[in-house]
Amino acid sequence: YGRFGLDWNEANETNPGVSETNITSRFRLTFDVATETDGGVTVGGRIRAQARSRDGAPGVAGWSAPQFHVAYGGLRVNVGNIWGAIDSAPGLYLNTTSVGTGIDGMGFNSLATGNGFDWDTFTSAGAGRNGVEAIYSAGGFTGHLSYSQSNGGVVPGSAQGLERTAIMLSYSFGDYFVTGAYQDEENGRTIVKNGATLSAGDDLMFFAAGADFGQFGATLSYAQTEEADAVTLAGEAEIGAASTIVAWVNSTDIDTGVTAATQTRLDGTAFGINYEYDLGGGVTFVAGYVNTAAATNENSVQAGLHFSF
Amino acid sequence: YGRFGLDWNEANETNPGVSETNITSRFRLTFDVATETDGGVTVGGRIRAQARSRDGAPGVAGWSAPQFHVAYGGLRVNVGNIWGAIDSAPGLYLNTTSVGTGIDGMGFNSLATGNGFDWDTFTSAGAGRNGVEAIYSAGGFTGHLSYSQSNGGVVPGSAQGLERTAIMLSYSFGDYFVTGAYQDEENGRTIVKNGATLSAGDDLMFFAAGADFGQFGATLSYAQTEEADAVTLAGEAEIGAASTIVAWVNSTDIDTGVTAATQTRLDGTAFGINYEYDLGGGVTFVAGYVNTAAATNENSVQAGLHFSF
Amino acid sequence: YGRFGLDWNEANETNPGVSETNITSRFRLTFDVATETDGGVTVGGRIRAQARSRDGAPGVAGWSAPQFHVAYGGLRVNVGNIWGAIDSAPGLYLNTTSVGTGIDGMGFNSLATGNGFDWDTFTSAGAGRNGVEAIYSAGGFTGHLSYSQSNGGVVPGSAQGLERTAIMLSYSFGDYFVTGAYQDEENGRTIVKNGATLSAGDDLMFFAAGADFGQFGATLSYAQTEEADAVTLAGEAEIGAASTIVAWVNSTDIDTGVTAATQTRLDGTAFGINYEYDLGGGVTFVAGYVNTAAATNENSVQAGLHFSF
Repeated sequence: YGRFGLDWNEANETNPGVSETNITSRFRLTFDVATETDGGVTVGGRIRAQARSRDGAPGVAGWSAPQFHVAYGGLRVNVGNIWGAIDSAPGLYLNTTSVGTGIDGMGFNSLATGNGFDWDTFTSAGAGRNGVEAIYSAGGFTGHLSYSQSNGGVVPGSAQGLERTAIMLSYSFGDYFVTGAYQDEENGRTIVKNGATLSAGDDLMFFAAGADFGQFGATLSYAQTEEADAVTLAGEAEIGAASTIVAWVNSTDIDTGVTAATQTRLDGTAFGINYEYDLGGGVTFVAGYVNTAAATNENSVQAGLHFSF
Repeated sequence: YGRFGLDWNEANETNPGVSETNITSRFRLTFDVATETDGGVTVGGRIRAQARSRDGAPGVAGWSAPQFHVAYGGLRVNVGNIWGAIDSAPGLYLNTTSVGTGIDGMGFNSLATGNGFDWDTFTSAGAGRNGVEAIYSAGGFTGHLSYSQSNGGVVPGSAQGLERTAIMLSYSFGDYFVTGAYQDEENGRTIVKNGATLSAGDDLMFFAAGADFGQFGATLSYAQTEEADAVTLAGEAEIGAASTIVAWVNSTDIDTGVTAATQTRLDGTAFGINYEYDLGGGVTFVAGYVNTAAATNENSVQAGLHFSF
Repeated sequence: YGRFGLDWNEANETNPGVSETNITSRFRLTFDVATETDGGVTVGGRIRAQARSRDGAPGVAGWSAPQFHVAYGGLRVNVGNIWGAIDSAPGLYLNTTSVGTGIDGMGFNSLATGNGFDWDTFTSAGAGRNGVEAIYSAGGFTGHLSYSQSNGGVVPGSAQGLERTAIMLSYSFGDYFVTGAYQDEENGRTIVKNGATLSAGDDLMFFAAGADFGQFGATLSYAQTEEADAVTLAGEAEIGAASTIVAWVNSTDIDTGVTAATQTRLDGTAFGINYEYDLGGGVTFVAGYVNTAAATNENSVQAGLHFSF
């Protein structure tokens, strides 16, 4: 898909040589391939090339690393550039074209887990994580188990780099859904808490519950990490035939034991609103406003077009 | 498209470890995508991957940055990796497969504006410029306005890098056309003239007029930049059913006030000839000869194939 | 195509921070284009994008350099990223999906010419060699002549980098084939032999003969390089409707005059076995075992899937 628009970010007021108003854009080509064995098992792969312009700096496209999959019935196993169990949790991201606010997500401040992305996710313009995951769906139930490992350390014959194991369970029934997810992490980004050095993505817990009554919907999500507890409430309303508004508010409470120098999140309340108008033919007009929990330069606005191809 | 052939360049006589005769080639994949809204507005994008071999050094392909567009009726707005108003001026480039001479343009010595490319152009193997442009066409008239800006400088919240604004107007009537274009540039490549430091692409003016009587055609173009004035006369003749010859002569007069160390062009007369034979199926045999305005090693010859796909 | 699986390599036992068991994978997109002139000559090109994960390190895809071709009847001329006459010799590689053992070739220890790849080959994820080659086929006969040259040295106007000229002749008759190939190389990787510095790929000779009686087949190949003489015997057997086994043994005899520090091959006997099961739909289960000529950590095992698209 492609998306492009204007981004006004108050935080660039302190960024030397960068305008507060810039073009923000992304162009993404996805190559999906699949074949089926005589036994009915699907075997396939996906790779992406993606380019973006952000904060006045245009960029050429770059390839991703590939994801391979084997699927049969409700079971799918991915190898390589996996999706990740935490990243796939229903209720984590917003129900918008950017899965955040505005054209490019605007920093993804709506995530209850924080926007540090201390979990595995399909990386569209980089090598990403090298993992394995299994996803099983039946009826309204989805279970997702993911594991990834990186080279690291000095022990011969043993990879002791960043290692993540995550599980996600979700169940939808009628107009409602509930989700729970947990991640164990080793050798990740470090934070210091009460004198101990911890892996920032370790012991990550995420819970969400939502309801969708057609014209109106709402999702409540809660996440606890080593650094902070946060809760996000998002509401959705359809207006007329083609307009959709998503509004959210996030409250983050940083653990007082975390050393200030290793804090990466903002204590306080952030909120945002995303407006979309369906122009037909896969083209959507998108506008967004975000107010982060920062004390100054906390405002940003975006508007532009998103089109599918 | 693809193109490949042999390049003999006398100037490599002084190039250590590089042969005078080399393979010259380019392979270009263009991904064009577009969709149409219910209101009849076209929204789309373009991205390229391109590889080349030049002067004995083969290269892998690289992605470009994307261009996005919105079009309705005769109006088209491009965002991102724009074409540029100067670069789109009819009469600037030659009417050949390489839009210069031979297989790879052979240095584009036919341009009245010089071959320093101090103007915005779609960059096929790099991030290029981040710009916005509007193009309006009606009847024989085309108007083109382009603007681009880069990060730069040290002022917080303000982009003071390379900035270009250009306008191009063109009108064609019957067998004739006329073109005028102008560019304002700030913070570009610098030249020193009469003691003052100037942006090389500032105050660039271009005019062209041409006629095409079927079998014969001719174009006269004139450009004035801070560094030099130049005039190019190009003539075109079709011979038999499949052959076309384009011959050109360029005379460049460097402003005597420009400090020699910052001169990038050659004072004097250059000329060249391009021969093409249409082999059918989108394949063209192309041969070219160029004599630059240099005092020594001024000759080069190329021959090869160009094919569309 | 895509391929992915697990690789257990005993040699990683001494590799700090790398596990002995890793994901091994490759994803390859090939863009082939061709057109035909009115005279019946085919003109085309090929370029690839390829990504891989090896020894625990995932990677993004990268483009190759392009290959161009002109073909008419039994004659084909390639320009750019050529295949190479040595690399195209029947009997050099194994008749398996990886043309070596297992998922990723497992080091290509079956090659009688050694696995240093001191010859031209199409490079799928790099610029490779810049060459020209002609291939002529008629009846069971194939002749292949390739030449490549690199920039190098300090002589102006002369490329004195790596230069290779190779010829390959092959003839197949009924169930049998014979192949002979020879390469002359200058300015390649150096080895020291009896006090003289030599180009490792110079004076490379390769001979192979094979027979295929449907269910069973065998190939005997012999190569002599400046560093070593080696002979490889490979046998192939089809078991049932969908299984194929290829087993090989290689004996390498390093020339005693080669200084130990410049030796790149292992003196002794290596062997391996490759098992493939055709799952239908272009999907193949592949497993391999290799025992190199190394004194310790000589074992590796791989198993996974290969799928075409």
